[in-house]
Amino acid sequence: MCEAHAYMERDGREELLLESVDRVEPQADGSFLLVNIFGQQKTVRAPLKRMHLVEHRIVFGS
Amino acid sequence: MCEAHAYMERDGREELLLESVDRVEPQADGSFLLVNIFGQQKTVRAPLKRMHLVEHRIVFGS
Repeated sequence: MCEAHAYMERDGREELLLESVDRVEPQADGSFLLVNIFGQQKTVRAPLKRMHLVEHRIVFGS
Repeated sequence: MCEAHAYMERDGREELLLESVDRVEPQADGSFLLVNIFGQQKTVRAPLKRMHLVEHRIVFGS
């Protein structure tokens, strides 16, 4: 499977937000809706910093 | 491999921007730098609309 794990970067450290993310959907208020392959959802209120898909990583943070 | 293909959505149609994208890096000017697994780069000057990683799709468009 080709999902990625979503992390929040804070003070140089990365904290796991949601594993096995399938869908990332930007919302009108600037947040991101994440939905993983298990149907779990999380809203992230921080900018997207970078994605490295081969490494299965999506990183948010200001 | 778990890269995704990047598309631009215009008038309800999707046009391929770059295949086999590994890295997506938001830039300070609001654009996105895409880098694929072959080292090809492309800058996209449009908002991110959605990503469906299991389907290997990243869609940009206003």
